[in-house]
Amino acid sequence: MTPDEIARKVADAMLAREGTGPAWGIEIEEVREGYARIRMRLTAAMLNGHRKAHGGMVYALADTAFAYACNSRNLRTVGAQATMVFLDGAEEGEILVAEAQEAALVGRSGVYNVSVRTDRGRPVAEFQGFSRSVGGEFIDLNASP
Amino acid sequence: MTPDEIARKVADAMLAREGTGPAWGIEIEEVREGYARIRMRLTAAMLNGHRKAHGGMVYALADTAFAYACNSRNLRTVGAQATMVFLDGAEEGEILVAEAQEAALVGRSGVYNVSVRTDRGRPVAEFQGFSRSVGGEFIDLNASP
Amino acid sequence: MTPDEIARKVADAMLAREGTGPAWGIEIEEVREGYARIRMRLTAAMLNGHRKAHGGMVYALADTAFAYACNSRNLRTVGAQATMVFLDGAEEGEILVAEAQEAALVGRSGVYNVSVRTDRGRPVAEFQGFSRSVGGEFIDLNASP
Amino acid sequence: MTPDEIARKVADAMLAREGTGPAWGIEIEEVREGYARIRMRLTAAMLNGHRKAHGGMVYALADTAFAYACNSRNLRTVGAQATMVFLDGAEEGEILVAEAQEAALVGRSGVYNVSVRTDRGRPVAEFQGFSRSVGGEFIDLNASP
Repeated sequence: MTPDEIARKVADAMLAREGTGPAWGIEIEEVREGYARIRMRLTAAMLNGHRKAHGGMVYALADTAFAYACNSRNLRTVGAQATMVFLDGAEEGEILVAEAQEAALVGRSGVYNVSVRTDRGRPVAEFQGFSRSVGGEFIDLNASP
Repeated sequence: MTPDEIARKVADAMLAREGTGPAWGIEIEEVREGYARIRMRLTAAMLNGHRKAHGGMVYALADTAFAYACNSRNLRTVGAQATMVFLDGAEEGEILVAEAQEAALVGRSGVYNVSVRTDRGRPVAEFQGFSRSVGGEFIDLNASP
Repeated sequence: MTPDEIARKVADAMLAREGTGPAWGIEIEEVREGYARIRMRLTAAMLNGHRKAHGGMVYALADTAFAYACNSRNLRTVGAQATMVFLDGAEEGEILVAEAQEAALVGRSGVYNVSVRTDRGRPVAEFQGFSRSVGGEFIDLNASP
Repeated sequence: MTPDEIARKVADAMLAREGTGPAWGIEIEEVREGYARIRMRLTAAMLNGHRKAHGGMVYALADTAFAYACNSRNLRTVGAQATMVFLDGAEEGEILVAEAQEAALVGRSGVYNVSVRTDRGRPVAEFQGFSRSVGGEFIDLNASP
């Protein structure tokens, strides 16, 4: 398998194992080494008291893209810290796309920048996540399918 | 009504209006002017691919406490940015408590520090949120009940 | 003047007016619309108690690149918040290069990602800054030189 | 020595060893276990192109208080990440006071909230730092003086 094929396989396995991906309707668009792009449709259960996308859900989407990107080399990696700037609101029914790109990787530490936009390209939020690999592989690449 | 009574009334109204509070099982423990403490039980739908609380859900809880605290004066206020450090994992069934405290308020800008711990006091995450008030009141305090 | 020429002229004017640029030995390598790359040599006065580059100085360099990038359209803009991840130490005599790139711009709000590396390309830190324009121009482009 | 005496001794040693403390005119007001309060007078060399305190210098002050607080147990500890919200400008000649307080400590990881105010109590910035201890002691407490 190529590094990009491994990255996609890990992300698919993470999505299958996690409770949040199905609960939030996460769909993977593309995953490569150090990169992930995913989408989610905003439902009524994701709105805050101002009837806009809850900051927690926008963050959760970005954090999921971050997780797929930072685990893309099949080294078990967790988020240590992350920050998000909220640029614009989003409404029920809109589709949000989170695109995570690796900015730097030094030893066990990585930094990933994630842009969240609507599927029409309107900016919603910018996120930066700091990851630490904790040892071990996420999936067994030698297992029979 | 006292400032603390107003703060509680606003938080109750926010919880009633938002889609996320009921979806996540948010319970308000205490809200005062510039302060909020809430709780949430971790369900299977809140777990990541490592079978721990998803960072997005821990953040979403902290962000909710932040929202109640920064709207506590009944001035419509939104999150502009927030950051979270993840200190320890949490498991399905554990109860997380988020406690938000106002650190500073200057004009329209506020900063709130939020600690997330289990209900037994084990630290899970620390959050800092930056809010901006956007004008208008959240609830009509003169309305008949 | 082209947008990129304006950007450079604003950065040169900022560097000339600020007390910090000369004090820290900041040199501008390149400034374009939404982009800035600058450098600084680490001196003994920039070291912490571990005899490495003080986090405050690494941040100060990144913050300066951020300021030049977010003021590049000659609209007076200030930092509202910023975050930095420290990936590796740096030593006295090393040259640090900070490269700021605009990630998103929505109304008065902008987000800029800044990478700090040595001039040999070793990653030192990653920074994300959130800016707000405050009205007015930074320099008078119609003034005679 | 009590824990608070150790904390003060470590901070004094850090200030003596670092290049930045003397360069910036840092003065220690109080250091205890998990706590530090320091001050700095703003000079012309600390101003940005808007003739206000440069964000990098405000951060550098907060980062220094953070460093003294997170090293206060005499376990060698470094900043892994930090974030700052800028609430108000400050002028040449004003005295800034940074007060760092430990929010949580889990294993090698700590989180510290730092408030920066003028010596008259006007809020200027709020900072949150994430530290990691890296092993070893900062000073030899058994050494003869």
